[in-house]
Amino acid sequence: MHLSRFFMPVLRDTPKEAEIISHQLMLRAAMIKQSAAGIYSWLPLGLRVLKKIEGIVREEQNRAGAVEILMPTIQSADLWRESGRYEAYGKEMLRIVDRHERDILYGPTAEEVVTAIFRDSVRSYKDLPKNLYNIQWKFRDEIRPRFGVMRGREFLMKDAYSFDLTKEDARATYQRMFAAYLRTFARMGLKSVPMKADTGPIGGDLSHEFIILAETGESEVFLHKDLLDERVPPADTDFFGDLSGVVENWTSRYAATDEIHDAAKFENEVPEAKRVTARGIEVGHIFYFGTKYSAAMGAKVQGPDGQLVTPEMGSYGVGVSRLAGAIIEASHDEAGIIWPVPVAPFEVGLVNLRAGDAATDGACADLYNKLQAAGVEVLYDDTDERAGAKFSTMDLIGLPYQLIVGPKGVKNGEVEIKARAGAERETLGIEAGLNQVIAAVQSQRILA
Amino acid sequence: MHLSRFFMPVLRDTPKEAEIISHQLMLRAAMIKQSAAGIYSWLPLGLRVLKKIEGIVREEQNRAGAVEILMPTIQSADLWRESGRYEAYGKEMLRIVDRHERDILYGPTAEEVVTAIFRDSVRSYKDLPKNLYNIQWKFRDEIRPRFGVMRGREFLMKDAYSFDLTKEDARATYQRMFAAYLRTFARMGLKSVPMKADTGPIGGDLSHEFIILAETGESEVFLHKDLLDERVPPADTDFFGDLSGVVENWTSRYAATDEIHDAAKFENEVPEAKRVTARGIEVGHIFYFGTKYSAAMGAKVQGPDGQLVTPEMGSYGVGVSRLAGAIIEASHDEAGIIWPVPVAPFEVGLVNLRAGDAATDGACADLYNKLQAAGVEVLYDDTDERAGAKFSTMDLIGLPYQLIVGPKGVKNGEVEIKARAGAERETLGIEAGLNQVIAAVQSQRILA
Repeated sequence: MHLSRFFMPVLRDTPKEAEIISHQLMLRAAMIKQSAAGIYSWLPLGLRVLKKIEGIVREEQNRAGAVEILMPTIQSADLWRESGRYEAYGKEMLRIVDRHERDILYGPTAEEVVTAIFRDSVRSYKDLPKNLYNIQWKFRDEIRPRFGVMRGREFLMKDAYSFDLTKEDARATYQRMFAAYLRTFARMGLKSVPMKADTGPIGGDLSHEFIILAETGESEVFLHKDLLDERVPPADTDFFGDLSGVVENWTSRYAATDEIHDAAKFENEVPEAKRVTARGIEVGHIFYFGTKYSAAMGAKVQGPDGQLVTPEMGSYGVGVSRLAGAIIEASHDEAGIIWPVPVAPFEVGLVNLRAGDAATDGACADLYNKLQAAGVEVLYDDTDERAGAKFSTMDLIGLPYQLIVGPKGVKNGEVEIKARAGAERETLGIEAGLNQVIAAVQSQRILA
Repeated sequence: MHLSRFFMPVLRDTPKEAEIISHQLMLRAAMIKQSAAGIYSWLPLGLRVLKKIEGIVREEQNRAGAVEILMPTIQSADLWRESGRYEAYGKEMLRIVDRHERDILYGPTAEEVVTAIFRDSVRSYKDLPKNLYNIQWKFRDEIRPRFGVMRGREFLMKDAYSFDLTKEDARATYQRMFAAYLRTFARMGLKSVPMKADTGPIGGDLSHEFIILAETGESEVFLHKDLLDERVPPADTDFFGDLSGVVENWTSRYAATDEIHDAAKFENEVPEAKRVTARGIEVGHIFYFGTKYSAAMGAKVQGPDGQLVTPEMGSYGVGVSRLAGAIIEASHDEAGIIWPVPVAPFEVGLVNLRAGDAATDGACADLYNKLQAAGVEVLYDDTDERAGAKFSTMDLIGLPYQLIVGPKGVKNGEVEIKARAGAERETLGIEAGLNQVIAAVQSQRILA
């Protein structure tokens, strides 16, 4: 992509309304633009990141056997009356009356819709297990939306819903999602730790939050140090086999958010040298809640013995739009964002220091074509901005690698390369620089 | 994908509520499920089609230089007050009051939101032209939603919005989108014809609807026969060059929907042998409307001479979810849907006629792996349904090619292949059948 044809209106100054670093950087880097309180447009750079995150979430859901559907944003209030949640849900539900005076709502979650789909479609235990997920916009009318996409009102969520014949099967499904989540966040370059959680308004008796560690995280968390080195299930894990070992490894040591932290237990269970207190951000939440919705809404399948069985359910959420902010909280410096390759909006920034100079333009065009041919995603700054502004912009938007091309270097057959996560620029021959950048990008695409 | 792990609850009977063939087939083939009046969930098969359609639309928008953003579904009423449309728009706008008693709405279109983005971000003529598009859910509170996704209330639309410095530039942008639309629909296997249209509530002075021809289309259209053979711009068209010739070719002959049809003019301009009366479905609509929104909302850029200029705008819509229905209207038979390869949910259906028989299972597993290795998208019916039901289901869901494997064939080293658009099954050696199906799929992926 040529920057001159792109749309990336970066801001030089930090907008006053942004309190946290990810919000500031997303606004400055022209990733998002506020449209109303807690409601954002995603500009091209931000949308590319959002799609990358969505893609990773999708791949790991598919790997774990979940099947993608897409439920509507607008739901019927009658469905929520069946589960009893229409009255119970507070003011965060955006309630709407349509032109025929029917009560509808903007879905904050979709247990009712998916249970209705299941109820009308599945008749036999032979069709179980089923785990249906969707990646769709949700709305929660937060009383005080803030922190940009971290606590917006309209947000993109991956929500999966599982149906199993028995509690034992449901537990296996829960373990599959648990393992899938570990992979999902690791692939984005994040260190995530599952922590036991209250089930809250979803209900149920088993639940974990997935917390990623970031110095500027929203809440305090307490954990056993060894969890930081615990292994994430590899890509060739058999997701249809027994995953209880994975869950056991990750849950046998102390880890808790401040909401349920028990200081005495922490000191009791964890040796002093292993006690870690850190900041974290919740990016996923999984629940096993049994028959709460299936029973209330009359979803039943015929069991092996001919008797009707009410399926056991769980739900599994990932904050897809929130992750864009969370990754920045976990990966930035004073100059801007530092994208891990798998979620970077482009993998390489190609900087032309003298647009209009025939030799420099020619060298850039050649590098651009070669990067494209190698399947590398490039943003080519072909504008006539001055060099200093170009460098600041590249650092701000945080592409993992920069290839810098100026008239003097071209004359000497040289380019500069810079890893955004590193410190210094390095001067190399043009081919060598190109190959080094391509190899670096390729080696970092798969982080788990 | 193994059918046993998929979620495809097909219906044997035609639901009574479905009046038109695409709605009937989408329900029967388990592509969609109604959730409320005019509001649908997309089940896995339907979602795969929707994503294919979306992908083609996106590729052609990108090719034509438009840049993707994503605007929120919920918009502020204040923006619509600026343009004057908040009061003007009728009951089709879903008006909402949030918990702070602020007026918000579910966007039926996004001229206001995008003009506000532009106004706050673009300062100079040097940043023009800009054409920003998004593919996002919209809501129109139709008084009588019907015909499934063809006239739903919540629907997926691609909407692009262009900003140009001069009327001349705006006309060139309009021509680019015109050409992009011709390619977009042709790539889906559709015959589309642009027809001059009223501009309606969007305003402006130049507008075309893109109508695809389908026997069961919603409206009557009248056109010069030669338009049916008119050439679509090829993939290597220079979209930044002069496209006035393309537009001229496609608009110089008579073509009109019944809304603006002029029988006298038709008979006058078109020789009798060239007069075609057909049924059509609107799948795209493009508008040039000048400064209607930019002037009302105070969007201005500095021109080359330092003076402030109000940019010329256009908007360009494609009914993405509607297209899923429209393609079916244009391509089906008594047995079900007939998907063109580029929009098929899977390219090949692999049918195991004796699941559980070791030799048949083995042959199917081998074919499945080879199809996957060749990059072909396969749905493998590995269930223990009887053969007749499997055949009906495959015909109903309309995958372009079927590979049918039974115990007798396997013993003889043979498979049957069937092109869904053709009539008969053909028996071939296993390798030959496999290769023929792979070659057929590959040759039909790019239709324009």
